[in-house]
Amino acid sequence: MKNEFNFIQSKLKPLSFNNKEARGLSDDCAIFNNLNDLAISVDTSVEGVHVPIGTDIGIQSRRAILRALSDLATFGSSPICIFAAMILPKSFQESDFDRIAEGYRKALIEYDIFLAGGDITSQDGLPIFSITVLGDKGNVELGRNKAREGDLIVVSGSIGDSFVGLNLLMDDDLKQKSLVDTNLVNKFLIPNPQIELGKNIKMFATSIIDISDGLISEIKHLCENSKVGADINIIDIPISIEAKKYIDSNIFNHIDLITGGDDYELLYTIDPKDENLIDENSSIIGKIISGNKINLYSKDKNLIDVNKIILGYKHF
Amino acid sequence: MKNEFNFIQSKLKPLSFNNKEARGLSDDCAIFNNLNDLAISVDTSVEGVHVPIGTDIGIQSRRAILRALSDLATFGSSPICIFAAMILPKSFQESDFDRIAEGYRKALIEYDIFLAGGDITSQDGLPIFSITVLGDKGNVELGRNKAREGDLIVVSGSIGDSFVGLNLLMDDDLKQKSLVDTNLVNKFLIPNPQIELGKNIKMFATSIIDISDGLISEIKHLCENSKVGADINIIDIPISIEAKKYIDSNIFNHIDLITGGDDYELLYTIDPKDENLIDENSSIIGKIISGNKINLYSKDKNLIDVNKIILGYKHF
Repeated sequence: MKNEFNFIQSKLKPLSFNNKEARGLSDDCAIFNNLNDLAISVDTSVEGVHVPIGTDIGIQSRRAILRALSDLATFGSSPICIFAAMILPKSFQESDFDRIAEGYRKALIEYDIFLAGGDITSQDGLPIFSITVLGDKGNVELGRNKAREGDLIVVSGSIGDSFVGLNLLMDDDLKQKSLVDTNLVNKFLIPNPQIELGKNIKMFATSIIDISDGLISEIKHLCENSKVGADINIIDIPISIEAKKYIDSNIFNHIDLITGGDDYELLYTIDPKDENLIDENSSIIGKIISGNKINLYSKDKNLIDVNKIILGYKHF
Repeated sequence: MKNEFNFIQSKLKPLSFNNKEARGLSDDCAIFNNLNDLAISVDTSVEGVHVPIGTDIGIQSRRAILRALSDLATFGSSPICIFAAMILPKSFQESDFDRIAEGYRKALIEYDIFLAGGDITSQDGLPIFSITVLGDKGNVELGRNKAREGDLIVVSGSIGDSFVGLNLLMDDDLKQKSLVDTNLVNKFLIPNPQIELGKNIKMFATSIIDISDGLISEIKHLCENSKVGADINIIDIPISIEAKKYIDSNIFNHIDLITGGDDYELLYTIDPKDENLIDENSSIIGKIISGNKINLYSKDKNLIDVNKIILGYKHF
């Protein structure tokens, strides 16, 4: 949907009637500060849109929860429970339901949370999971609009593994490599929402966003919301050894990896004085500048036009 | 899905890990008594399942919220806000988005609540709205499992208007009558969740359930959950003058109306000593008995076999 952003801004945002909990519909969660800083987010996963058609249904149900939890991480919130709305094919058999429940169970146990409710509809069509997540103790001061000039820009983990993993699953020429590089495939199929990191950085990060739509796209979101620009050095963006193989063999390039989606890492900004507080799993990739430009510098210091590279998540 | 109930009971209920907020996944809402008795429910509306294909998209978005709010009424909760997950056809144009927002606006303003967040996905398929509703001050003592032997069984409003209204929309032979009986059609298209009634009765009702799946089906749910039976007199079930016309002209019968769905009235039980507390819009239709039988008595006192009449919502 090309007009999704406009729809939200012009038609839906007015329906929040300026209630501060809705945060202008521009953050990853709503936060209710009169309810123990309860953070709530809804995230929908559709087979054929968010995962390739034919993905194991137990992976789909598990992944749907993990993706939704990633939103809670951006407020440093502690997950409590989920509600699961499912729209499932009429043809589903007991074994499919078993797989769905098993996928849920894995995600719930991993994050020590519970299923609090939901809804089941059957129809002719591909499976859909719409997950509402609740967490408490979100830091209401956080969000996408608090990055300030001079802040350092930090990302957790490595970027692009999931992009490569998805391509290993989807691309017939690459498919057999997926059996070798299962780590990359699993980065796509079983995201690792950065709940603990969110809790650790929530008191010193000036802004946090999760990287679901591709690193560069999220930097853009963060800068637009904070009304700032950014200098980013591609060479500082962390790429795993496994993903780097695909760059070295010219199957993908750096731009592919940093514009692909589904990393579910955290992108955050900090005051330079807090540099010593970031953990060993996080990398400084640039800094916030005044203005509204995102300057992306290549290895040899050439400026890359961010607006010309493919931005954001490409639905398949 | 024939196995929906089994799926919930055998596969999903264990995933609530006995957290009391989830209420065994058997009530209309989860309730968080450490969060101001916050009540939360999720309700999904799918074109072609919950409304006929071709229903105005603004009616669909409005109706999706109204249906979800009905769950809050069963705990006497005061609605606060909603989250709207939408899965919309790729072909949707700006005018469709305008209609969706206008439908939301009407429901939100009517109940003095706001849009707190959501999610938009586009795909090839019919529109789906999955609505998460939040309300506070739910009565945690309520639910479906507290009806006791000797309690009176009460319903609000009239039963079956929505069933007739839907048939006026769907049945080619009846379609032109829909222009005359717009009240009945609107009862289906624009449900009236009994929020105020829920707040009024929450302190004396022993159990409350909303009538989404047909009166008889909901009586069965209530009795099963409370481990009781019921005596019901069909003649006491309130039917509107408009709906009665269709019985008198043999187009529908009483059984059709009391087993059709989408009434969105409240079915509740009270101690007989509280009979004077029910409002003029509520009708006593029977009483709770021991055992597990539902005895449905016809006008001339014949016993109707509840298991032989069509039970519950018939997806179309």
